[in-house]
Amino acid sequence: MSLLNETHDPALKSWVEQANQPGSDFPIQNLPFGRYRRIGANDDFKIGVAIGDQILDLQGTGLIESPDMNALMALDTAARLRLRRDISGGLAQGSAQQQVWSKLLTPQSAAEMAVPCRIGDYTDFYTGIHHATSVGKLFRPDQPLMPNYKWVPIGYHGRSSSIRVSGQTFRRPRGQTKASDAAQPSIGPSRRLDYELELGYFVGRGNELGQPVSIEDAENHLFGVTLLNDWSARDIQAWEYQPLGPFLSKNFASTVSPWLVTTEALAPFRTALTRPEGDPQPLPYLDGDFNRKAGMFDIMLEVLILTERMAKAGLPPERLTLGNAGTAAYWTAAQLLTHHTVNGCNLQSGDLLGSGTLSGPAANEAGSLLELTEGGKKSISLANGEERTFLEDGDAMILRGWCERPGAARIGLGEVRGTVLA
Amino acid sequence: MSLLNETHDPALKSWVEQANQPGSDFPIQNLPFGRYRRIGANDDFKIGVAIGDQILDLQGTGLIESPDMNALMALDTAARLRLRRDISGGLAQGSAQQQVWSKLLTPQSAAEMAVPCRIGDYTDFYTGIHHATSVGKLFRPDQPLMPNYKWVPIGYHGRSSSIRVSGQTFRRPRGQTKASDAAQPSIGPSRRLDYELELGYFVGRGNELGQPVSIEDAENHLFGVTLLNDWSARDIQAWEYQPLGPFLSKNFASTVSPWLVTTEALAPFRTALTRPEGDPQPLPYLDGDFNRKAGMFDIMLEVLILTERMAKAGLPPERLTLGNAGTAAYWTAAQLLTHHTVNGCNLQSGDLLGSGTLSGPAANEAGSLLELTEGGKKSISLANGEERTFLEDGDAMILRGWCERPGAARIGLGEVRGTVLA
Repeated sequence: MSLLNETHDPALKSWVEQANQPGSDFPIQNLPFGRYRRIGANDDFKIGVAIGDQILDLQGTGLIESPDMNALMALDTAARLRLRRDISGGLAQGSAQQQVWSKLLTPQSAAEMAVPCRIGDYTDFYTGIHHATSVGKLFRPDQPLMPNYKWVPIGYHGRSSSIRVSGQTFRRPRGQTKASDAAQPSIGPSRRLDYELELGYFVGRGNELGQPVSIEDAENHLFGVTLLNDWSARDIQAWEYQPLGPFLSKNFASTVSPWLVTTEALAPFRTALTRPEGDPQPLPYLDGDFNRKAGMFDIMLEVLILTERMAKAGLPPERLTLGNAGTAAYWTAAQLLTHHTVNGCNLQSGDLLGSGTLSGPAANEAGSLLELTEGGKKSISLANGEERTFLEDGDAMILRGWCERPGAARIGLGEVRGTVLA
Repeated sequence: MSLLNETHDPALKSWVEQANQPGSDFPIQNLPFGRYRRIGANDDFKIGVAIGDQILDLQGTGLIESPDMNALMALDTAARLRLRRDISGGLAQGSAQQQVWSKLLTPQSAAEMAVPCRIGDYTDFYTGIHHATSVGKLFRPDQPLMPNYKWVPIGYHGRSSSIRVSGQTFRRPRGQTKASDAAQPSIGPSRRLDYELELGYFVGRGNELGQPVSIEDAENHLFGVTLLNDWSARDIQAWEYQPLGPFLSKNFASTVSPWLVTTEALAPFRTALTRPEGDPQPLPYLDGDFNRKAGMFDIMLEVLILTERMAKAGLPPERLTLGNAGTAAYWTAAQLLTHHTVNGCNLQSGDLLGSGTLSGPAANEAGSLLELTEGGKKSISLANGEERTFLEDGDAMILRGWCERPGAARIGLGEVRGTVLA
């Protein structure tokens, strides 16, 4: 694909040796951006680039002038490509910068990460068609998908203020719920707390209010991708969501992974957008040649759980599901961005667009407990004998993502972890 | 009521003469905050206090140190009261500050206003029970109100980035719509563009993530009130809103008035929260003594239209409706704030909570065209012979608000104006 250049060459190696290990999330072909500081230091957060198990201080290299990630994200496409080439060149084996840049490294194990940028507005979409179908079935067995689903990239506004970075812990939310056989609602801790496996698409360059972004231009406004856990309280959601949508069932916490993996890094893993036979084609404003051929990302997605009991016993996290974003999503990131602006709505650098829960077509690819337990009707068994229908106090959820295929370097998204407190 | 002090004394006069005129929105008992600069100047916006037809440069008085409105809004209750007393004292007739402060005035007619603060997150509620009932009837004649309405202050997240101050003009939004008899949707300009009459409640002091705000403490976190026009494209809304709520039908534009009228200024106009006989009492977390006795604001609300034809003919704006917030809303601002945080969600200084459309119980108190025209079925006639079902290009909508009662000074909210472009 013409998007590829020398920074994607799988033979390229870094002088940061750990980046060359097979299985590393952050080889020299990746180069994701994050905000970090030394653990315990009260410094301001700096922009760093993950390379192997290290972080490169990007401002220290002189390649950027400010520690403002949103400003970096607002760069135009040409400037972004230049920056990527310069970072890649400096980190490559044999680079003249090695001596200076090696003093700019911090081990990831010694770093505290922040939410990668200032998120002005957060919009959550609903692109996981298998998720929408499974969840719809629980409520409307005869018509799981709404008539608009295959025409409109369904989305709603989320809450920015409660988005935190991987490592977030939060108290089980309280809220109003109403049992179907109860005369009136009551207030108490959620009994049906769930996770949602999502990708977070981050906006790079924004658009002015009143100026839609065409599908052809949309990729120029996308910066990169993180993992996103859209924690959900299903019992609060069921009682509150009519008629204006989810609210307190979602906004108590949302967790993102710390590394913005750029669309440049993901270029070798673009795939075609295909729609099942018989489905309507997108309306013209959502239909572009590049989008059809290469709008999707072939990203593997994994969900793991580490219960408090497992952690105390020294057991490793246990995989709940493994799936692929490319087969789970019905709409591309570019389509979400174009749809979001078709009415003139302005996106700003750093805005977050959630993909919605990315459940695959198979039952064991489901991206939430709501689906895995069929609405809480059957529990799942863990290897240590524990059972779960919904999350219990002390449960940590871990989402991981990566891209792999023969002939390309592995690109990892890292992980996002969050823990439910009592 | 014990909330009142000498700054509310109706006999108090200012040395800014226009503030003493009957009918002024901004007498010395009001003292709302806004952000302004001289028209044509490229200066940063400053914090000003409206007094009569003038604006006082607050930083110039030495009473605040920074031009950051959000920092001012985050002051605790005691500091806010002190600031109000100091401003009132300085602007009162006979004040020792008159000579110095008179040099700090800018005529409102010479000022450009900004959105009054940095709005991190915007939440729109649905407290207008007559609006919810009328709109519900259009969709569900047998069950206009959802079963949760009288228990849950229904709300959803809105879009911060497209909020602008009074004077906003915006292009008629495009979007997907589907006629009920059409086989598939199409894309084009909205044909059912509407306004919504709302109050904007602004958060003062925020709360930490995970730390709910009790109903007793909620008033300490409320800063003040503006007018809010939540422009809505009904045809886009009808096709997109299932199952996750309104999205592109709302986020193309929202307009606020420039002056933050503080809860201190509104203290003489607090009224009791009364619920119709037979309605359930709020759950305990939403029920407090002060809230019951004085949680509502007795604010008059007026909607006017100025069509392009009227403007060209030199006609004044024509009133569409006149109502009262206190009889339109089912939930108080404090209840919205407490409900919003009951799950641990964090509010931040400057966050905006929309009241939802405040339609009164009578048909001529409706706060939207959707209600006035019964869903577009019957048009309304203007005095110049024009007819409207929904808004046409060139229409300007003007919302005004004020408080008046014998024995208290008039407190005005000013106005919010916005115009639809082709």
